[in-house]
Amino acid sequence: MPRYKVILAYDGSGFSGYQVQPHKRTVQSELEEALLKMHKGEFVRVTASGRTDTGVHAAGQVIHFDSPLQIPNEKFQRALQRMTPFDIGIHSVEQVPDDFHARYGTVGKEYRYVIKNSTDYDPFSRNFALHYPYPLSIEKMQEASQILIGEHDFTSFCSARTEQDSKVRTIYSIEFLKEKETITICYRGDGFLYNMVRILTGALLDIGQGRMTAETLEKALQAKDRTKLPSVTAPAQGLYLWEVAYK
Amino acid sequence: MPRYKVILAYDGSGFSGYQVQPHKRTVQSELEEALLKMHKGEFVRVTASGRTDTGVHAAGQVIHFDSPLQIPNEKFQRALQRMTPFDIGIHSVEQVPDDFHARYGTVGKEYRYVIKNSTDYDPFSRNFALHYPYPLSIEKMQEASQILIGEHDFTSFCSARTEQDSKVRTIYSIEFLKEKETITICYRGDGFLYNMVRILTGALLDIGQGRMTAETLEKALQAKDRTKLPSVTAPAQGLYLWEVAYK
Repeated sequence: MPRYKVILAYDGSGFSGYQVQPHKRTVQSELEEALLKMHKGEFVRVTASGRTDTGVHAAGQVIHFDSPLQIPNEKFQRALQRMTPFDIGIHSVEQVPDDFHARYGTVGKEYRYVIKNSTDYDPFSRNFALHYPYPLSIEKMQEASQILIGEHDFTSFCSARTEQDSKVRTIYSIEFLKEKETITICYRGDGFLYNMVRILTGALLDIGQGRMTAETLEKALQAKDRTKLPSVTAPAQGLYLWEVAYK
Repeated sequence: MPRYKVILAYDGSGFSGYQVQPHKRTVQSELEEALLKMHKGEFVRVTASGRTDTGVHAAGQVIHFDSPLQIPNEKFQRALQRMTPFDIGIHSVEQVPDDFHARYGTVGKEYRYVIKNSTDYDPFSRNFALHYPYPLSIEKMQEASQILIGEHDFTSFCSARTEQDSKVRTIYSIEFLKEKETITICYRGDGFLYNMVRILTGALLDIGQGRMTAETLEKALQAKDRTKLPSVTAPAQGLYLWEVAYK
C-alpha cells in the first residue's frame, strides 16, 4: 500500500494541540476526518513528526499515512486541502518509500519563537507572537545562547511531564532575526523535549531584559534540575514548528 | 469638558463591523463599554471617522469623545488599553481642542487592500488577506488604476446601500507594494463610498488576471451604473482602514 508524506502548516489558535484527544478539536483529528471522507469511511491513521501543544503553530509539520489510493501528488494535495478546515494549509503530498517514517526518520527540527517587542499593543499578532513590551538586548541573548549549543542534558529545560527517558539533546544553532519590532529566535537541533523551546525562550528573554545572567543559565544547565531556572515558560502563541529534516 | 482623540487598531475578524448594532459585538460597543467602566457607569458616546464593515480591519481608525476625566494622554492610553478586549489596540489618546471632530474634520483617508498571491494556501493570513491563487500582472493593474485617479463620480463603484447623495470623490493616489507573495494596494483619497475600495479592488484584480480590460473599467466609470462593472466586490478580510488625516 503506498505511503504518503504530507508537509502542512496550521494556525494553532483554534486547536487543542496536534494530538487526538476525546471531545477536543485537534489537528490530527481534523486530518484523519478529512482522510476518512476521501477513503469513503475507511479510517486512515496519520503519524506526525511530533506533537505540538495548544496554541502552538506549524509552518512545516510533517505527517505520513498509508493509503490504497493511487493519486498523483499535486492532485492529492489539492483534494486534501479541500477536505481540511481553513486553519490548516496542505503544502505538499508526496508518495514516499515504505520505510519513510515521519517520527522515527527525523534527523533534525527547527522551531521558531516570534516576539513582538514594542510598547504598542498590536491586535493583529496577538495569536501569532509574544507581545513583549520591555527593552531587550539581542546581543546579551545571542551571547548567552552559545552556552546552549551542542550536546547537553536538558533536564532543566523541559516540563516535568516529559515522557522521554533521555534528556540529552543536541542544539545545532540558535539564530536571531530582527525585522522592525519583530524578533524571531530560530532553534535548530536533533530534537527538542516537551516545552523545551518555550522554556529556553523564557530564559533568554529574562537575560535580554537584564533580569537574569548568563551565569544563572549555565548553572541551571549543569544542575539538571528545572527548579534551578528562575525564568518562566514563554507562552504558546509565539512558537512555530518551522521545519522537519529527514535523511 | 475635555475632548479626546484616540487612534486605534482592530482585528475585524471577531466584530460585526464598527458601528453599534443590537445584540452584535461591534468595535464601537466595546469602546463605549470600556469608557462606561472608566466613567463609573456614565455613558460616553464615541464618534469615529467612519464605519468599517464586518471583517474589515483598522490600523489607524480615529475616534473622539468628550469626558470630564482629566488624565494625562499616556496614562489614559494605558487605562483604555487595559479596559478593551485583545482584538483592539489603543495606539494613542490625546486631548484635543473642542472643535476637533473625528468624522467631519477628515481631509483624507488611506485604505489598504492586502492580497496573498500564491497557489499555496496560507492558514495564517486567512483572516488578514485575500488568498488569490491566480497569476496577476501588477503592471496592468497599475496602468488601469491611473483611470481612477482624480475627481470622479464613483456611482459605478459603490454599493446600492450607499447613503451619501453625492458620489463624487477624489482619489489622490493608488500605489502597489509587493513583498514576496503579498501585494498591497494603497488607496489615498478625500473619502470613499460604501464598499468602494473593495469594488475597486475586485475590478483591478480582474484586470491583473486578464479577465477584464482597462477600457471596461473606464466605460464603467463613465456609465455611473454599478451594473456596467462585471467584476465582483473583493472580500472584507483583505481591507484595512490604514490612516485618517486631519487638517
